[in-house]
Order: sequence, then C-alpha cells, then structure tokens
Amino acid sequence: MGPRHFDWRRLEELATNLLVRAGASEQHARTVAQSLVHADLRGIESHGLARLPIYLERINAGVIRLDSEPKVIMQEGATALIDGDNHLGAVVGMAALDQAISLARQMGVGFVGVRHSNHFGSCSYYAEQAIERGQILLVLSNAPEAMAPTGGIRPFFGTNPVAVGIPAGKQPPFLLDMATSVAARGKIALAEKRGESIPADWAIDSEGNPTTSPQAALAGSLLPIGGAKGYGLAMFIDILCGILTGAACGPGVRSLYDNLEHPQNIGHVFMAVDIERFWPLSVFQRRMDAYINEIKSVPRRAGIEEIMIPGEIERRNMESQKSKGITLATGIAKELERLCAEIGLDLRDACIEE
Amino acid sequence: MGPRHFDWRRLEELATNLLVRAGASEQHARTVAQSLVHADLRGIESHGLARLPIYLERINAGVIRLDSEPKVIMQEGATALIDGDNHLGAVVGMAALDQAISLARQMGVGFVGVRHSNHFGSCSYYAEQAIERGQILLVLSNAPEAMAPTGGIRPFFGTNPVAVGIPAGKQPPFLLDMATSVAARGKIALAEKRGESIPADWAIDSEGNPTTSPQAALAGSLLPIGGAKGYGLAMFIDILCGILTGAACGPGVRSLYDNLEHPQNIGHVFMAVDIERFWPLSVFQRRMDAYINEIKSVPRRAGIEEIMIPGEIERRNMESQKSKGITLATGIAKELERLCAEIGLDLRDACIEE
Ligand SMILES: NC(=O)c1ccc[n+]([C@@H]2O[C@H](COP(=O)([O-])OP(=O)(O)OC[C@H]3O[C@@H](n4cnc5c(N)ncnc54)[C@H](O)[C@@H]3O)[C@@H](O)[C@H]2O)c1
Ligand SMILES: NC(=O)c1ccc[n+]([C@@H]2O[C@H](COP(=O)([O-])OP(=O)(O)OC[C@H]3O[C@@H](n4cnc5c(N)ncnc54)[C@H](O)[C@@H]3O)[C@@H](O)[C@H]2O)c1
Repeated sequence: MGPRHFDWRRLEELATNLLVRAGASEQHARTVAQSLVHADLRGIESHGLARLPIYLERINAGVIRLDSEPKVIMQEGATALIDGDNHLGAVVGMAALDQAISLARQMGVGFVGVRHSNHFGSCSYYAEQAIERGQILLVLSNAPEAMAPTGGIRPFFGTNPVAVGIPAGKQPPFLLDMATSVAARGKIALAEKRGESIPADWAIDSEGNPTTSPQAALAGSLLPIGGAKGYGLAMFIDILCGILTGAACGPGVRSLYDNLEHPQNIGHVFMAVDIERFWPLSVFQRRMDAYINEIKSVPRRAGIEEIMIPGEIERRNMESQKSKGITLATGIAKELERLCAEIGLDLRDACIEE
Repeated sequence: MGPRHFDWRRLEELATNLLVRAGASEQHARTVAQSLVHADLRGIESHGLARLPIYLERINAGVIRLDSEPKVIMQEGATALIDGDNHLGAVVGMAALDQAISLARQMGVGFVGVRHSNHFGSCSYYAEQAIERGQILLVLSNAPEAMAPTGGIRPFFGTNPVAVGIPAGKQPPFLLDMATSVAARGKIALAEKRGESIPADWAIDSEGNPTTSPQAALAGSLLPIGGAKGYGLAMFIDILCGILTGAACGPGVRSLYDNLEHPQNIGHVFMAVDIERFWPLSVFQRRMDAYINEIKSVPRRAGIEEIMIPGEIERRNMESQKSKGITLATGIAKELERLCAEIGLDLRDACIEE
C-alpha cells in the first residue's frame, strides 16, 4: 500500500481497538490513540502512530503495565506527586494534567511531579487541552540519553522537551512545543537513509567534533540549542522531572526501543497557572489577540509571507489534515496494516476515497 | 586610573553610599549595591557596577521612584501579584523573591508576577539567594526590544532572560542564568569597538540577512537561541512577565538608556518550589551530588579539562574575585571615580594594595 490519506477519526478508532486488544481499558486506549493521532494531525509524524507498534510491543513484553492506575501519592498545598505505576505515558500524562489544572483552579497554580511514567508522546497534546480549558500550562519531560553536557562526548541527557500552552482569543493560541536539541534524532536518521549530509550544528561525532555525516552523528551526540544554554535547559528539566520526582534521570532513563527488559521510568512535571487570578479570561484573551497582531505586523524578511506564532504551523496542519485526511508514510501504514490484520481489522477502512 | 583590583566589600559600601545620596533608603541602597557587586564578582560585568551610573541618572530624572515601596496587590492561594511602583529593579526583585519563597513554604509552590518594575540586574542574584534558602527558583524577566520574531526584521522582544537555581550538597549548585539571545548586545558593541567581526549566528542586519558585521548587527536584530525555539522562549517569557502581570510587553517595554522620560514598566515572574514537599533537603542534596558527579565523569573532548555545571564558572570567578579583588574595566572605574568624587568619596579607597 502506497502513502494514502486517512480519516483521523477512523485512525483513532483503529488505534483504540489495537490497544484494547492488547489489554488496555477502553478509556485508556482512547487517550493514547488520541495523543498519537493528535501528533499526526499536527504533522509531528515522529510522535504519531509511528510509535504505536513499540507501545504494543512493550505491553506484550510486560514492561508497560495495564493492570493498575496512576496514583496521587502526595498532595499538599499546590503541589502533588503522581506515581504512574508504569502505565502508558499518555494515561499518566492525562492524570497529571487533570491534577495540575484542578490545583490551579483551587490555588492559582498547580505543580505536579510524575515518576514511573513512559514515553508520553508530543507535549502539545497536554498543552492543547489546557488551552481549551483556559489555563496556562508548562509541561516538561525527561527522555533517554541523546545529548552530551557541553565539553562531553557521550550522550547523557535526553532531548528533554518543554511545552507551554497559553490561550488567546480570536488569534491562534501560543503553543510552544520543542525538544532542547537543535534537531530531532529522527531527522538525522532520515538524512542517513537518503544519503544526505546534515548541518554542522546538529551533532558531534564520538570524539566531540562537529560533523555533517549522519552516520558519525548517530554514533556521537546531538547538540543542544544555544550551546551551554541548551545543556543547562536540558539539565534543569532532568533535575525537576527526574531528581525532584524520584523518577530516573540522566542515562538512568531507559530506552523506548532496544530494551524490552526494563520500564523506562520517565519523569514529567506539569505546571498550570490559572489566568483568572490575574484577569478575567476575556480581558487576557483580548490582550493576547492585540499582542499577536502586533507580532504579525513586524516587517518581514523578503520571501516570508507571514510571521507565525509558535504552534500555528502545526495548527494549520491539523485543520487541513482533519478535512483532507492524514498522510501516513508508507512504512508506518504497512506496519499498522499488519497490526490491524492480526486482530481482524483492515487499515483500508480508514482510507479516504480519492 | 588604569584597571585595578577592588575590594568587593568596599565597592558595595561605595555603591550603597551613592544610592543613599541619590535618595534611596539605606536598606534599598544596600540591596541594589549587592546585586551589582554580585554580578561583577561573578564576572558578569555587563550587569555589574557598569549599570550604576544609569540607575542614578534615572533616579535624578524622576523616572525611577524612591518615595514608595513595592506592594503586594493580590495574594490568593499560591499566587501573588506585586506592583513595583517603579522602584529600583533589585528592590522590587527582592520583594518578589521573598514572596515566592514564603508562598512555597506554605503551599509547596509560589508563583509571583511583578509589574511596574525596572532593570533588576543579573537574574542569578535572586537564584543564588533561593539556593541558600534551600529552595528551587525560576526567574523570568522581559526587557527592551532587541530580537525579531522568526521571519521578522525589526526588534520586538527583549533578550528576555531566564534563570533557575537548584541547591546541591557538596557539589556546586545548579545555577543556569541566560539571555534567550545567542549573544548579548554588549558583546557585539565590544566587537565593534575592537574592529572585529562577529559569528554569523549572532544577529541579522536590518534586511534580515545573517551578518558578521557588528555595525550591521547593531542596526538589525539579535538572533534567539535555536531559531524559532528561542523566539518561542522569549515570547513565552514576555507573555508571563508582561501580559499576565499587566506590565509592558514587546516594544512597549521602555529602554534603560536613551530614555529619561518614561518608566521602563518591566515585568518579572518569580516561581519557587519547596523541595521538602518531595524529599528531606539532605536526601535531595545527596541525589544532586551523585548526579553532578556522574555528569562530571562523562568522557571529555580533547582539550577540555573539566565538565562544568551551569553557574560553576561564575561561582569560581566569585571565589577568586572575593579573595583577589574585582577587576573593573578602565571606563567603568573612571565613571565610578567621578560619581564618588561628586559626593566627596574616593574610589581609590576601595583599591586592593598591589
Ligand atoms: N516525549 C518525548 O520524550 C519527546 C522528546 C523530544 C521531543 N518530543 C516532541 O517532539 C516534537 C517535535 O519537537 P521539535 O523540537 O522537533 O519541534 P520543532 O522544531 O518542529 O518546533 C518547535 C517549536 O517551534 C515552533 N516553530 C517552528 N518554526 C516556527 C516558525 N517559523 N515560526 C513560529 N514558530 C515556529 C513550533 O510551532 C514548535 O512550537 C514535539 O511535539 C515534542 O514534544 C517528545
Ligand atoms: N535584566 C535583564 O534585562 C537581562 C537581560 C538579559 C540578560 N541578563 C543577564 O545577563 C547575564 C548574562 O547572560 P548570558 O546569556 O550572556 O550568559 P552566558 O551565555 O555567559 O551564560 C549562560 C549560562 O550558561 C552557563 N555556561 C556557560 N558556559 C558553560 C559551560 N561551558 N559549561 C556549563 N555551563 C556553562 C553559565 O553558567 C550560565 O548559567 C545573566 O546574568 C542574565 O541574567 C539580564
């Protein structure tokens, strides 16, 4: 089957079915399916259904547990600590999101640490929901080793992502969602596949020299944004998500792939701020709209048609793919087709007629 | 007078006297003097006593007010809003730090917004004090226009800094303190003075092209770290510090220099997290020490003697300058000498014998 357009609702249905067959409750399966389809819709293919096969494999290997629930193990004042009990990352993430927003509504701010979690997909999944509920959200997560500290030559930190969601009114909301590395590992793997070279600021080889060779980069370390600044940001995220919560940190965070023996023990931090302590939401939204308008009116470089707000490109992808269908890469579609066939479903049912 | 070594305590005394003579209370003068000498001690000359002349000038021009106090105008749950009433930035910053830590002790986390503030120096001044009090601190501030949004060619955002302080035990604490631009404007001005060129990733000219000319860069815009990622970080900081608090934002933040008509109306956010809600401080400190040891043991690139923790270089500067004296650049020493002479003091009294 070549690359095709798929209806996002039907893809979500299929993914939910696959997860239910693997043992997840209907509700948990739907959460995870939504988080993956959300990423595909936004054009973040690296964090979309491409991850479903490994999630299922880990469930089957018993390194993701479905027979339990994330638990709030501490809640005092405006802070809480959640033990994910090694459940699917998006299930744990949703529990943390709900807790952070509920604390923010009571206390103005909610700070929630999470331990014993798994890969939870694209951070924008949580930020988008906070925006819909009129809240400001900051999400942090650690991740398996990929970046060396400045001066070092072995991966130590993950590409530890940070996302921030802030509602606007008529203008698109602010949704920054970024890895702290210059480029994702997936982009380097793609360049290798295509026989292309990579920019010299993406990675260092195993001796610490800048490299344009994807092979050398994959054997070396990714570079953080802004040199030591990005190293500092990745370390800050690791300390909060790993050391403060009691999850793993540094190279102690286990790989999602090549590791069917150990839980990942990823940590997250979810922090929500209730805008209404400061302004009626509608006033804040009007101020955001005026501000975004001002940014969009900044004179542009020749060839730039429009200044975009963080999250806006992905939002436009989402709108277009909701109506025209999601394009899945051939490899991913094949993999899903095989998984569907195993439980008597047909991926082609999700195809949009052309 | 050529470049000399100065005793930091005596410099602090002189700066305090200068501020008292300008009308500040003894306590406020000492706070501001400390924040400036703190930066010089850490080797952050751009945010040290070099800023004292413009602070004094702004007090004299009446665009910084000393006849009032920062006020807590909202405090609910774990959030607060402080109106700086256009006082000296470090005075306002200290009020916000105290409020954030006090909320964190009561509620586990404290989120404090600040409006109507002024340039508050190096963020590390506040982060260092939080560390001494065993708290995690995140400090954000907006600043006058210097960076364009991605695709734009006119400055809109400040080099909006972010700092994070996290205590360790025997190891140096984590103290990340960074502008969201690749390089500070001051570094470009210095290159211009010296007739040197600058790296192509520091700035764009007024047409949006990368430039190695410091002149063209100063007439253009600074570049954020990580391209659109740094633009997103600077915008996030501006929204929290400006829109959420009700301070100015974007180009509405007034210049510290070339503007003796308008208050700056800078906004800050101070967020503290109480470690003890999660771990006894000593346990957290031991985990931090082990973690930092692990980072320092990562194999190094040829020529790198040691992997440094964010804030460690500045901490070593501080230790060495506390014992050997602070080196002030000739221009700054001359300026201070002149200001001291005006009120009958002699900068040479602060010199360390050689
Ligand atoms: N769960 C994990 O362990 C993990 C780890 C790393 C990354 N991730 C996810 O990977 C995804 C991709 O991260 P990334 O860093 O490659 O993202 P990216 O570089 O594609 O985008 C980063 C941010 O910049 C914004 N942006 C990009 N170009 C822009 C422009 N011209 N104008 C305005 N804004 C612009 C985007 O909207 C986005 O908010 C994210 O969803 C992240 O959460 C997850
Ligand atoms: N008040 C304001 O409006 C304002 C605006 C911008 C910047 N600032 C201040 O300017 C100062 C300088 O900012 P900057 O971005 O130029 O700082 P910088 O680039 O010198 O350092 C940034 C951070 O990286 C760390 N670092 C640098 N090299 C390292 C290495 N090899 N290993 C480990 N860590 C390393 C430093 O310790 C620091 O925490 C800061 O104090 C900041 O608060 C203030």
